[in-house]
Amino acid sequence: MALIVQKFGGTSVGTVERIQAVAEKIQTFRKQGHDIVVVVSAMSGETNRLVSMASEMQKHPKAEELDVLLSTGEQVTIALLSMALENLGCPARSYTGWQIAIRTDSYHNKARIQEIDTGSVRADLDAGRVVVVAGFQGVSESGRITTLGRGGSDTTAVALAAALDAQECQIYTDVDGVYTTDPRVVEGARRLDKITFEEMLEMASLGSKVLQIRSVEFAGKYNVTLRVLHSFQDGPGTLITLEEQSEMEQPVVSGIAFNRDEAKLTIKGVPDIPGVASRILGPVGRANIEVDMIVQNVAADQTTDFTFTVHRNDYQRALEVVAQTCKDLGAREYDGDNKIAKVSIVGVGMRSHAGVATQMFEALAAEGINIQIISTSEIKVSVVIQEKYLELAVRALHSTFELNQGTSVEQE
Amino acid sequence: MALIVQKFGGTSVGTVERIQAVAEKIQTFRKQGHDIVVVVSAMSGETNRLVSMASEMQKHPKAEELDVLLSTGEQVTIALLSMALENLGCPARSYTGWQIAIRTDSYHNKARIQEIDTGSVRADLDAGRVVVVAGFQGVSESGRITTLGRGGSDTTAVALAAALDAQECQIYTDVDGVYTTDPRVVEGARRLDKITFEEMLEMASLGSKVLQIRSVEFAGKYNVTLRVLHSFQDGPGTLITLEEQSEMEQPVVSGIAFNRDEAKLTIKGVPDIPGVASRILGPVGRANIEVDMIVQNVAADQTTDFTFTVHRNDYQRALEVVAQTCKDLGAREYDGDNKIAKVSIVGVGMRSHAGVATQMFEALAAEGINIQIISTSEIKVSVVIQEKYLELAVRALHSTFELNQGTSVEQE
Repeated sequence: MALIVQKFGGTSVGTVERIQAVAEKIQTFRKQGHDIVVVVSAMSGETNRLVSMASEMQKHPKAEELDVLLSTGEQVTIALLSMALENLGCPARSYTGWQIAIRTDSYHNKARIQEIDTGSVRADLDAGRVVVVAGFQGVSESGRITTLGRGGSDTTAVALAAALDAQECQIYTDVDGVYTTDPRVVEGARRLDKITFEEMLEMASLGSKVLQIRSVEFAGKYNVTLRVLHSFQDGPGTLITLEEQSEMEQPVVSGIAFNRDEAKLTIKGVPDIPGVASRILGPVGRANIEVDMIVQNVAADQTTDFTFTVHRNDYQRALEVVAQTCKDLGAREYDGDNKIAKVSIVGVGMRSHAGVATQMFEALAAEGINIQIISTSEIKVSVVIQEKYLELAVRALHSTFELNQGTSVEQE
Repeated sequence: MALIVQKFGGTSVGTVERIQAVAEKIQTFRKQGHDIVVVVSAMSGETNRLVSMASEMQKHPKAEELDVLLSTGEQVTIALLSMALENLGCPARSYTGWQIAIRTDSYHNKARIQEIDTGSVRADLDAGRVVVVAGFQGVSESGRITTLGRGGSDTTAVALAAALDAQECQIYTDVDGVYTTDPRVVEGARRLDKITFEEMLEMASLGSKVLQIRSVEFAGKYNVTLRVLHSFQDGPGTLITLEEQSEMEQPVVSGIAFNRDEAKLTIKGVPDIPGVASRILGPVGRANIEVDMIVQNVAADQTTDFTFTVHRNDYQRALEVVAQTCKDLGAREYDGDNKIAKVSIVGVGMRSHAGVATQMFEALAAEGINIQIISTSEIKVSVVIQEKYLELAVRALHSTFELNQGTSVEQE
């Protein structure tokens, strides 16, 4: 018997029938004696419908009013799910963000949770009720409705689990766990039983969009045990925990992440003087373009080459910015490429194992894949390669680090 | 320069384009220097859509959760209308029921307003903002969302006008005012410039569904000047006030109301003993059937005939109840008729003019229409007739009391 927070996303509650199926799932847990707090998103499609009405009203809808509008999506779901639970004879009570109350700052459309009152929820749990909470939303100090940004329901679930000291926070989704890599690219991709928060963060930020990054950070900070599970298939899912596995069982690499949406820009022959990085990246940031990887080559002949990557959608705008900067700095030339991709190996095991990067570079070289940029952190190595080699690279690395189904996952 | 409360119903805000048109209308008033509080309903069709989802979840959706669900309808409208106003350069701020707060009792789905905090609204008005309020909803003492029942947005508007001491409460709808009778029945039906609350109450409860009865009662009680206007056509509408017009200008009859949804039931040969009325109507009330008119004929031969009318939808159930009562009381027989209609003349002028009822009976007799039941109050006379004579009766009375367009409306 434990307190469990369960989160069901938009697809899991996308139709009347699915909401009923979710209610039955919850009822099963409750019959096992668990106290259940459920966090739900808006029915799939609903948020888009509301956003589209808003943009008909105002080109850039006022942030405060957009939150009033969008928060209705989750409010509909909590009411319907509570009815479905009651219909099964399971006492339930719904809560909007302000009813809990989930107190946030006043940054509308991307508010951050500051405090959660749990008194009322605890009273309901003690009275044997399932508590159904609207994800994604909160209330500011001035009593206005706020939302946490897309995917914010994950954050709501983790924050509630932390505030209630829940045994586990279960994120139900349309995959049955976190995989060593995308199964659509590598047939032998394997579901991981466990992964650390750090690894999950690297996997998530690199394109494995199972969980919102913020919710994983939050879970790590407050040591909330997370589990990713399939909404409508049974299985253990993937556990995301603070603890690393003991050295003996530790795989060096836990997964291969990748991202196609990359473009790179290079300025060549930049005078090698202090402050040159900020003079190149400053104008990019002011143009509201987010920079991912940054590499500066060692200077020769008093000049240096400077390369950075951006999201492919920002490529043309970034090129224009760079053209101006090139002229301003008196650099020799600039160029760019939007047919690139990023591949990364991720694993906390790298901390205690040397030579992992070399192993990666050798594997790529063996396939004739040229590496354009390298960037490393404590638990990952990322490389930029030509996009056409992406699948080949992922498969080669997946095999090199013995992540395939049926192969050993231990590193002796 | 005055404070005006304006209410727009579901049809008036039924599409993105209509919401934009409403925003422009509001902007015009604001430019004239008025302070505006707008109360809106859910976009037409939305409440039905939500109710239908709810009934798929639970045959009788839990009242508390139904309110959580239904209140989203108005919340969507306030956000969209506020955006549309801002888009026109008109500062606006939306309020849900709990944000105002509109405090109600805890009778979910049909809550009654107890108190309204106006501090925040006044501050917004002082800051030059249009205040956009979700109609139909409030918040109970325990912090749960409540709704006021269908048409409750009218009540919200009137209650806000009373709390804010507004100069006028304008109800925008799809007719351009209150008519002497239904223009679909009488071609010459005329829009009334003014009508008293009492007359409006009689008109409304008899089937002229321009305004919710409760909101008219509320307006009368707190002396809120009401005006019914067309949402998208210019015109003065109909003013609903406390004051009667001076004697000289007073028409005897202000309008002809009628209702087709009637059925009558009669128990004949009931022993004429004390308490017989309650023994007949008690079981009807316990079967949750509302009784409209009640007539008991003077007793002959120690027995009496007892007749009452109910809504036509309740006719079959009422017949079953009456069959049992007839047996229990040892009455002679019972019968019923669901092909009847009720026609009423309404006017505060009746207070000071005798012979109005006679004039009505003569007009109906002249058309060969038999009167089955008569019921009178201070400012109205109602008769039940065969349904097939309804239109004929309404036209005859409309003409008799000189309500037609172009005829004099004064009674010398």
